[in-house]
Amino acid sequence: MATTRSPRERMVFSAAQLIRRQGVTATGVRDVVAHADAPRGSVQHYFPDGKTQLVGEAVDWAGRYAGRRIDRFLATMRPPTPGKLFAAMVQQWINEYRRDGFAAGCPLAAATIDCADTDEKVRAQISRALNRWRDPITAALKEMDVPPAKAGSVATLMLCTLEGALILARAEQSVQPLQTVARELAPHLDRYATR
Amino acid sequence: MATTRSPRERMVFSAAQLIRRQGVTATGVRDVVAHADAPRGSVQHYFPDGKTQLVGEAVDWAGRYAGRRIDRFLATMRPPTPGKLFAAMVQQWINEYRRDGFAAGCPLAAATIDCADTDEKVRAQISRALNRWRDPITAALKEMDVPPAKAGSVATLMLCTLEGALILARAEQSVQPLQTVARELAPHLDRYATR
Repeated sequence: MATTRSPRERMVFSAAQLIRRQGVTATGVRDVVAHADAPRGSVQHYFPDGKTQLVGEAVDWAGRYAGRRIDRFLATMRPPTPGKLFAAMVQQWINEYRRDGFAAGCPLAAATIDCADTDEKVRAQISRALNRWRDPITAALKEMDVPPAKAGSVATLMLCTLEGALILARAEQSVQPLQTVARELAPHLDRYATR
Repeated sequence: MATTRSPRERMVFSAAQLIRRQGVTATGVRDVVAHADAPRGSVQHYFPDGKTQLVGEAVDWAGRYAGRRIDRFLATMRPPTPGKLFAAMVQQWINEYRRDGFAAGCPLAAATIDCADTDEKVRAQISRALNRWRDPITAALKEMDVPPAKAGSVATLMLCTLEGALILARAEQSVQPLQTVARELAPHLDRYATR
């Protein structure tokens, strides 16, 4: 990865990875430079607005990444249903936690907790990133015959439940909250497509 | 409030309030002392293990507070249902955000984001605090004829969805995610009590 991405891309990626482990406040610009194996001084070059810009771009990256995953999940389902899509979104995290442990959560949640009240610029970028994630879900739900007026609300319910399950999973060091919400919510979600 | 609580209680309360606004990392022990209007040097006296102990007690306090609220919500419902209980839990936050703005989230979520990977002692205390919140919900759901084997899972679904909605609400500076999850999830929750 380090060989194919530019130093700038690596720094954005590293910022996202550090933020999702320890939050924004504990993530120093120097830590990002070291994690990205980037040249010293490159922060000022690539991110003239400093940490706020770096955090904002990491948040952007996370929203785009999450949005792109939606299409990949859908491609594996014949036919996709709202419950199957939610279960796949949850399963990605179960797989990560089983493979890597519970070190990391969602960078959008971490940025919200640490910055929503203190950095309006980052806050607005989190909101846009959430839309980059939610919009493809909303579009997919409409394709699955969820009523158009309901699709955005169902997508919001999915994001909220997943975000909260990530917090409980990390606090409890267990994939159980993730398994529980997938099992209990998926049948409810499928009902939206059959009304 | 400052007149009826001891300095020690005020420091725990202040720690919780600061953590839910800006996270754990940004909350210094000095900030807590100032917010609590506590005597300098009282941290070493009351919290010999320093910030970890203070954060742990703030997390404990938050879990007990949230647990006690459950009984209060139930007392207003004749009869209580799972959906009504969830709507009341959500409404408390909608009321806070309408009254005070979106400055603060859940201290348990904030402590998880900032500490789950870095402070095992605090992490374990968050897990216990979540149980102090979830256990009265589970007990109440059983009273509402949710099958005993399902009650814990339904309580987990409620906590996860609320925690995630708080993150989206703060990121979007809007009560809409909270309103959405209450509206979309409550009917599903009520179905568990009628099977």
